[in-house]
Amino acid sequence: MDNLSKKIGIIGGGQLGKMMILEAKRLGFYVITLDPSESCPSHSISDKQILASFDDKKAIRTMAEKVDVMTYEFEHINVDILKELENEGYTIYPTAKSLEIIQNKYNQKVTLLNNNIAVPEFQSVKSIEDIQKAGHQFSYPMMLKTCTGGYDGKGNYVIENEESIKESYKQLGNGTLPLMVEKFVDLKKEISVLACRGIDGEISVYPVGENIHKDSILDETRVPASISMECTEKAMDMAHQVMEIFSGVGMFCVEMFVTQDDDILINEVAPRPHNSGHYTIEGCFTSQFEQHIRAITGLPLGDVSLRCPTVMRNIIGENGESGKANYEGIDKVYKDGNVKVHIYGKEEVRPKRKMGHITVIGRTLDEVVKKAETAKNEIKVVGEK
Amino acid sequence: MDNLSKKIGIIGGGQLGKMMILEAKRLGFYVITLDPSESCPSHSISDKQILASFDDKKAIRTMAEKVDVMTYEFEHINVDILKELENEGYTIYPTAKSLEIIQNKYNQKVTLLNNNIAVPEFQSVKSIEDIQKAGHQFSYPMMLKTCTGGYDGKGNYVIENEESIKESYKQLGNGTLPLMVEKFVDLKKEISVLACRGIDGEISVYPVGENIHKDSILDETRVPASISMECTEKAMDMAHQVMEIFSGVGMFCVEMFVTQDDDILINEVAPRPHNSGHYTIEGCFTSQFEQHIRAITGLPLGDVSLRCPTVMRNIIGENGESGKANYEGIDKVYKDGNVKVHIYGKEEVRPKRKMGHITVIGRTLDEVVKKAETAKNEIKVVGEK
Repeated sequence: MDNLSKKIGIIGGGQLGKMMILEAKRLGFYVITLDPSESCPSHSISDKQILASFDDKKAIRTMAEKVDVMTYEFEHINVDILKELENEGYTIYPTAKSLEIIQNKYNQKVTLLNNNIAVPEFQSVKSIEDIQKAGHQFSYPMMLKTCTGGYDGKGNYVIENEESIKESYKQLGNGTLPLMVEKFVDLKKEISVLACRGIDGEISVYPVGENIHKDSILDETRVPASISMECTEKAMDMAHQVMEIFSGVGMFCVEMFVTQDDDILINEVAPRPHNSGHYTIEGCFTSQFEQHIRAITGLPLGDVSLRCPTVMRNIIGENGESGKANYEGIDKVYKDGNVKVHIYGKEEVRPKRKMGHITVIGRTLDEVVKKAETAKNEIKVVGEK
Repeated sequence: MDNLSKKIGIIGGGQLGKMMILEAKRLGFYVITLDPSESCPSHSISDKQILASFDDKKAIRTMAEKVDVMTYEFEHINVDILKELENEGYTIYPTAKSLEIIQNKYNQKVTLLNNNIAVPEFQSVKSIEDIQKAGHQFSYPMMLKTCTGGYDGKGNYVIENEESIKESYKQLGNGTLPLMVEKFVDLKKEISVLACRGIDGEISVYPVGENIHKDSILDETRVPASISMECTEKAMDMAHQVMEIFSGVGMFCVEMFVTQDDDILINEVAPRPHNSGHYTIEGCFTSQFEQHIRAITGLPLGDVSLRCPTVMRNIIGENGESGKANYEGIDKVYKDGNVKVHIYGKEEVRPKRKMGHITVIGRTLDEVVKKAETAKNEIKVVGEK
């Protein structure tokens, strides 16, 4: 079978799935998605959609039978069925094994630590007493996290002092979910490095992006990151090491902290294209989505060097906005010819929902950051009541 | 209505339609295509396809009623229905009026000439005697062309001498089609300039591309064109003038000849994105397809400056190849990280059929031309019998 005849199955038809498909279609691939929503962002561009929930084992098996390679756009999937399918000989990238380790933040960090990768100090906790003990050791503020299922700040709680331990414990499931604590990192910058591994083991590492979060959700990615050359090399090197540890095929995102002393600690690994990698669509010759498609179909990887300074800003549903999404201001934003808007096609806007993003390119990072700020302020997603 | 809520209708679901949709989808547009083939390149990515032939007036009307703006990916369409719809208030870009003039090569050239744009000497001919007379005036070789319906060399005939006039007349319809002759141009280069006009009259002109044809079909586009700075400015200026003449909204391609004396003559205008503009996907921030979508939906135009030297090579069905298309060598081609392949998704390969294209970027044009040549030789479309 030639590479281009491979049928691709994607679990999840959100914006990441959509952007994968847009790249897959340039190469003429046949794509099936699995998503419970009939109007998910991918619905109109996939060849076929299986309407089913993400833990529907039967539906996932049906998809596996129809495609040559299966992938996913987010990590909160029933990994048991993936392992089962993998054992039966179906191809899933990144592998179910690497997904399983990464899904659990505690296991992920243990794996990284065992491979001599620096991470913030952490501990598994099972009770309020455990958290109190950890507090004595790590001091405050201290992070409490659910080991599984968190995203965009959900599943995280900053414990400011011993008095708020009870509340944090209550907020994160009251003991129903596995928990861990992490020493709070006095950070200078948050950065992320995207990397991809081909089927033959080839690894490509993207430039370092600098991330700015707002209310625990990614707001902005600036590339290149304003860090020292030494830090940049170290970060890219660490991303490379992470790829070797998980030996997964496909795109990974490695989120990192740069400390006040210019040390780098790994915060989290995601086994998929990532919000902080959207800049690659305009900023690099090979976007993270195309790279992922190349990797999982066995094609060699493309060039990932930065073509010019690039900034990405998320378009997120504002507080108070809900209902059918209407976009205002795109005509204003587009008056600057170096701004590009991506709209995911979600029918409804909701507070904190990722609705799209803006990419700006230019000659200097300063200029691009300013233009992106202007664009971000001009575009509005309004909920039609 | 906000710009992004506009529904787009495209007549034609071939590769140009497909590439328009891939860009439209990044902005979340709803797209309907009209194409007689169920498996046309656009079929899996448009929201809806109307299965009908391109001269099916009723079907075109049905589409007009369902969308806010209608466009087309090729110019051989029944213009009467478009004019009728336009008169009733439906929006069609480029306008039916500009399409009507451009459809007829003779009228197109008269219009250009009346606006002081240099074109090769030409004449309308109705009979063998007319062609003979023109031959005395223009000398040989001389071009005979059908005024309507030609593409990729079809509808053109190079008359080498007076003896071959009868054969040329027979080959081009034996008097059933309107004909014209053109003085043969002793050309140094063939170039083309893409340009776009926004709804508010804003005009953006792309860099000049140098085109190399093989068997009358475009084989290669090199950007920037290897012509003098003066020629480049003149070509871009002429493209700008053409945009003002046809006052169309959307993308146009202006094909030109550079003579041995560095004069520029306009060969042909196409009221749509063009094969020689595929390089813009990787070579410019705003591709010709995105620009077209921006223009017809009333959005401001994007930046069109060249990001780096870029070469496009067509992937065309070779003589003897027919049947279900299989692609060989893409894994070899992709070993160079700066090569990108686009596969249109046509089920069957046929001799001279455009199946896809290759784009290569790099630091110098020389390097890129070489890499593109290597890639072109490595990829094969094989027809499965």
